[in-house]
Amino acid sequence: MDIVKPTLILDKSACLKNIERMAKKAGKFNMEFRPHFKTHQSAKIGEWFRQSGVTAITVSSVSMAEYFASNGWDDITIAIPVNIHEISHIDRLASSIKINVLIENKEAANELKNRINNNLGVYIKIDTGYHRTGILSAKTSTIDSILEILRGNNNLGFKGFLSHTGHSYTANSVHEIHSRHFDALLKMRKLKQHYLKKYPNIKISMGDTPSCSICETFDGVDEIRPGNFVFYDYMQYKLGACRLEDIAVKMVCPVISKHRSRNEIVIYGGAIHLSKESITHVDGKAIYGRVIVNVDEKKVLLDELNYVSKLSQEHGIIRVTQKNFPLFNIGDFVEIIPVHSCLTANLVGKYLTTEGEEISIIPR
Amino acid sequence: MDIVKPTLILDKSACLKNIERMAKKAGKFNMEFRPHFKTHQSAKIGEWFRQSGVTAITVSSVSMAEYFASNGWDDITIAIPVNIHEISHIDRLASSIKINVLIENKEAANELKNRINNNLGVYIKIDTGYHRTGILSAKTSTIDSILEILRGNNNLGFKGFLSHTGHSYTANSVHEIHSRHFDALLKMRKLKQHYLKKYPNIKISMGDTPSCSICETFDGVDEIRPGNFVFYDYMQYKLGACRLEDIAVKMVCPVISKHRSRNEIVIYGGAIHLSKESITHVDGKAIYGRVIVNVDEKKVLLDELNYVSKLSQEHGIIRVTQKNFPLFNIGDFVEIIPVHSCLTANLVGKYLTTEGEEISIIPR
Repeated sequence: MDIVKPTLILDKSACLKNIERMAKKAGKFNMEFRPHFKTHQSAKIGEWFRQSGVTAITVSSVSMAEYFASNGWDDITIAIPVNIHEISHIDRLASSIKINVLIENKEAANELKNRINNNLGVYIKIDTGYHRTGILSAKTSTIDSILEILRGNNNLGFKGFLSHTGHSYTANSVHEIHSRHFDALLKMRKLKQHYLKKYPNIKISMGDTPSCSICETFDGVDEIRPGNFVFYDYMQYKLGACRLEDIAVKMVCPVISKHRSRNEIVIYGGAIHLSKESITHVDGKAIYGRVIVNVDEKKVLLDELNYVSKLSQEHGIIRVTQKNFPLFNIGDFVEIIPVHSCLTANLVGKYLTTEGEEISIIPR
Repeated sequence: MDIVKPTLILDKSACLKNIERMAKKAGKFNMEFRPHFKTHQSAKIGEWFRQSGVTAITVSSVSMAEYFASNGWDDITIAIPVNIHEISHIDRLASSIKINVLIENKEAANELKNRINNNLGVYIKIDTGYHRTGILSAKTSTIDSILEILRGNNNLGFKGFLSHTGHSYTANSVHEIHSRHFDALLKMRKLKQHYLKKYPNIKISMGDTPSCSICETFDGVDEIRPGNFVFYDYMQYKLGACRLEDIAVKMVCPVISKHRSRNEIVIYGGAIHLSKESITHVDGKAIYGRVIVNVDEKKVLLDELNYVSKLSQEHGIIRVTQKNFPLFNIGDFVEIIPVHSCLTANLVGKYLTTEGEEISIIPR
C-alpha cells in the first residue's frame, strides 16, 4: 500500500514481542494476565494476545466491552467506576459473558443492587495514591458499607480490590516507580489480608504499564492489567519502561514546508493525528514527538534537540538543529514517535502493519 | 434519544446564528465568504451554510476535499501547503470541480507544473507573522520564482495571496488581535498592489476566526475563510471573539465519582472526548474545559475556580470550590464547554443536536 498522508505504522513483530514478554512476566510471578485493550482498541490486535494465552481482558468503557464481547471475548473487566446510566447495558452484557465492574461509592453500589439481574463481578476500586478515583485503602468503614450494599443482591459477586498506580507516570526516576508500586502493593496486600477471612476468594488486581514493565516485586498480586505496553511510546521510554526498539507504532508524515530562517520543518500531521499530549523537555519546552529520518537509506533517530514542537489541527512543526536542517526535503516521509500511543491510535482509528495489513479500531 | 455517555450536544440555533452573522459580515465588507469546514467536518452541517448563500468552502486536507466534493461542493480551497504525494488526487478532483491549492515552495510548484493536467487554482501562501507556513511578504523574489515555475503549465492559474493570521490565537487582548490583523492586512494589500499590474484578477484571502469575529477593517480583502466560528469554544471566548451564548457545542458527561477531601468530581469524559488542548488559568494551571451544572433545573455556568483540571483517556477531573462541591451528585450530567471545538468534534465524530438529530462527520 502506498503511503501518501499521515499513517500510523504498526511494527507487528515488536508488538507481538511486547505481548509475549508481558505474558511471560505475569506467568513468572503466577499472576493472571488481563491486558487492557483501551490502547489498541482493535479486535484484530486482540487476536494476537490469544497466541500468548490471554483469555480475559480489561476495557475502559461499556461501549468497548460491547465491541470486544461481539468479537468473541467472554471475560471482561470494565475498569472505570460504574456509570449508573449504563447499568442496563452492563446487565445485558452480564447475561451472556463474565463481566466485572468497579465500584467506589455507595450511590453506584445501590444502583447495582437494585438493577442487576445477572451474575456480575464487582471489584472495589482502591486509590493507592494516584488520586483519580477509588477509596483510600485505610478507609475500611467505607469499604464495609459498600460491601453491605452489595450483599443485598445475590447476583453481585465481590471479586476483590483493584487499583491503578497511575502516579507511576509522574515519577521522576525508575527508582520512584519502584517505590510507588511497592507502596501500592503493601496497601493492597494489607487490604486483602484484612478481608480474606470473610471473603476467601478475593483477588488483588493491579497494573499500570510502567510498574508492570519495570518492577519485579508482585508478591500477593493475583492479576495485572497493563495496556500501553502493547505499543509503548515516547512517554514510556522517558520513564524507563521500554527500550526505543520496543515502541511499536510510529506516525509516518510527509514534509510539506521548510523554514531555514527558524530551523523549522512542517509536516502534514497534526493534533488530529498525534494528539496534543506532550512531555516537557529539559529546557521547559513541550515535546509532541521524536523524529526519525532516512539518512543514506538508514533510519536515524535524531537527538532531543530535534523534535515536534507544535501541533495545529493538521500541521506539525519540527524544530531541528541547523546541522540537521539539510536532512529534510519537501516530500520526504519522516517517522514520528508518538508521546502517547493510546491517544494517537484512538485519533487515527487504524493501523498499517509493517506487513502491509490495514487494521481498524472500534467504529466511532 | 437518551444520553448515557459523553455526548457532544450541538445547539443548532446558536450554530445557524453564528453562520448567518459571519455571512452578513462578509457581505457588509463585500468579501466572498469561503468558510473553513475543518471545524465541523460534516456534510449535514455543511448544508446549513447554503441557507446563508455559501457556495465555496475551505478544507484542510485532500481527504476532506474529496469528502465534501462527494457531498455536492464544487468550489474548494485546500488550505494546507501542497503535499506532493497527493498531487494525483488533487488533479483528479480538479478534473470535475473548482479546486484551489496553496504553494509556498519551489519544490511543490515544480511538481504541480509537471503533473497537473486539469485547471487548478493556485494561491501563494503568505506568512503574515504566524510563522507556521508561507513566504514572508517582503520576499518578492521567492514569490517571483514560484510564479515563474507556475507559468510553465497553462492549467495552473495564479489566484492570489492567502494568509492565516494564526498568531491572533496567542494575542493577549482584543487590541492585540486588531493590531495583528491590521499588520497582516497591510502586508497583504502591499503584495496585491505589487502584483496587480501583471495579474489583474488576483485576490487576497485572509481569515482566522478571532480576527473575522472582532475586527472591522477589511479594506482590500477579497475573501475570508474562518472556520471555528461555526461552533466557537472556550478559547475563542477567552480571546474575546464570541459571547458565551454563541458557543454551540458542549460535551455532556455523567458524574461517576466524587472526592470531597480534594474537592474533585470525576466525570466519564476524557482526552478521547475533549482532547488534551488546554488554556492556561490565571494561576498557571491548565484548564481543559469550563463546567455547567443544573441548579434548580436551571443551567448555571460555574466560575473559573471550577474547571476541568485533568484528563486521562476516559476520565475527566473537575476541580471545584468547597462551596460548589454539593452541587454534584453521582449520575448527574454536567456540560463541559470545550477548549477547542475543532479537536473535540474530530474526536467524537458525531453530534446530537438540541432537536435530537444525530449528525456524523467524515468517516475515519
